[in-house]
Amino acid sequence: MTQTAQFMDGTGLAERIVGEAAAKAAEISRRAGTSPCLATVLVGEDPASVTYVRMKRARCAKAGIRSRHIGLPATTTTAELIDTLAGLSGDPEVHGILLQHPCGPHIDERAAFEAIAPEKDVDGVTMRSFAAMSFGLQGFVSCTPGGIMRLLEAYDVDLAGKRAVVVGRSAILGKPVGMLLLARDATVTYCHSRTADLSGIVQEADVVVAAVGRPRLIRGEDVKPGAVVIDAGYNPGNVGDVDFDTAVTRARLITPVPGGVGPMTIAVLLAQTVDAAANQLGMRHH
Amino acid sequence: MTQTAQFMDGTGLAERIVGEAAAKAAEISRRAGTSPCLATVLVGEDPASVTYVRMKRARCAKAGIRSRHIGLPATTTTAELIDTLAGLSGDPEVHGILLQHPCGPHIDERAAFEAIAPEKDVDGVTMRSFAAMSFGLQGFVSCTPGGIMRLLEAYDVDLAGKRAVVVGRSAILGKPVGMLLLARDATVTYCHSRTADLSGIVQEADVVVAAVGRPRLIRGEDVKPGAVVIDAGYNPGNVGDVDFDTAVTRARLITPVPGGVGPMTIAVLLAQTVDAAANQLGMRHH
Repeated sequence: MTQTAQFMDGTGLAERIVGEAAAKAAEISRRAGTSPCLATVLVGEDPASVTYVRMKRARCAKAGIRSRHIGLPATTTTAELIDTLAGLSGDPEVHGILLQHPCGPHIDERAAFEAIAPEKDVDGVTMRSFAAMSFGLQGFVSCTPGGIMRLLEAYDVDLAGKRAVVVGRSAILGKPVGMLLLARDATVTYCHSRTADLSGIVQEADVVVAAVGRPRLIRGEDVKPGAVVIDAGYNPGNVGDVDFDTAVTRARLITPVPGGVGPMTIAVLLAQTVDAAANQLGMRHH
Repeated sequence: MTQTAQFMDGTGLAERIVGEAAAKAAEISRRAGTSPCLATVLVGEDPASVTYVRMKRARCAKAGIRSRHIGLPATTTTAELIDTLAGLSGDPEVHGILLQHPCGPHIDERAAFEAIAPEKDVDGVTMRSFAAMSFGLQGFVSCTPGGIMRLLEAYDVDLAGKRAVVVGRSAILGKPVGMLLLARDATVTYCHSRTADLSGIVQEADVVVAAVGRPRLIRGEDVKPGAVVIDAGYNPGNVGDVDFDTAVTRARLITPVPGGVGPMTIAVLLAQTVDAAANQLGMRHH
């Protein structure tokens, strides 16, 4: 008699969030005479990045959000990229800015991110946005961490006083999701490539967030019975960072790959773009 | 045969750091014709705050760092405080700014901190400084966390892959020290008032940083034999957050209270003020 975890349906939740964003976009359009606009900036022509940007723009279009694409040559310098982003930050027709990354090794990505005005940082990549997430202040969240928090909320996962283990410490995913979990009163442990006893630490977790991009790094047998497992890993062949087949027999809730965390990222991007437009156009939705 | 931990001598290390800062201040004075200047801003006349500011200014004077004190009435509004800080941020005669806090319940401290120019944030309180600490970027650190890291370094504490437990999650102490430990490749756990099994978690720690301000919250018998214990707690009667008498029999290294973390905070403030002056005057020391 094998137990089976309940799936956390990111596809369904993302659809609801996008539906709400579309309704707000329509209201903004009606009341302000202009629809929300996301600027997408891409340096070079990396095929995966081209696909991501195209997908994001298609979702925007479906939700009644305009997008303006700025494709820059691979030879673009950091200074030129900063100029572009600063221009968009000052352009009242643009409400949100997405810099598709990685931008390539010759670009100082941090300097580029910081050229995005905080009120247009709908991808939650600036230092200010990170600090706001960490301190529980108003601001836009990084999209994947924000999506994870919305999934946990949708499934009524109680976080206060619970052990949460975040595997990964990137500026865009691991670090911010840990800070958001801490803000919700979880006891948060950051694990990473140098962690000595990953198995032992995962075994104590009530909530595991895997966010490293290493296929099946988290062994199913290390999942504590009844734990909540969030797999934000993305690896070739739709394989997550968690050994799903074993983990699903032990967890209480688990995100499938695909259809778990993945769809949430774009949904949060769209929701934040609409919120940014509402703020900048002097409307309040919340 | 009771083992006794080695004391981590914050007083001695702080003296060395202040000595170095004084030498650099003298060099700046000689080469630039002006000595480093720290602006101290105090709202109201809370006796403890008055004492702290006086102490900091006296240490500055001893190290050849000028200070300019701005005492504002307790009735000062957030907007007035921001004006003052923005003025100091733009004043080329001032190299570092310290806003003594807490400022009182009527002040929006976060808004006030953010009026401090990043290059003058020698107390490491801005959102940008926090993010820089978190991302391993150039910038000023919060003084107490910075002091703790210097203590760990001075005693050659190996952090990579080790379990570090931070008890406390304030924006000025707990959160940044955790991020600095993570940047040094420790596996970091944040505990706090809502943590369910504090004893059990502390028992696993190779390094414990206590930073909550609750007398003897950390029981000595929970300290893992051979652990490093950093007590950043400050409570009346020179009592730390750690039950020192028991902890000292189990730890390998421990900070006494007083004379451990305490003296390091001002030392880092002075060192960063001198570095800020060097940067702003176009000199490089490192």
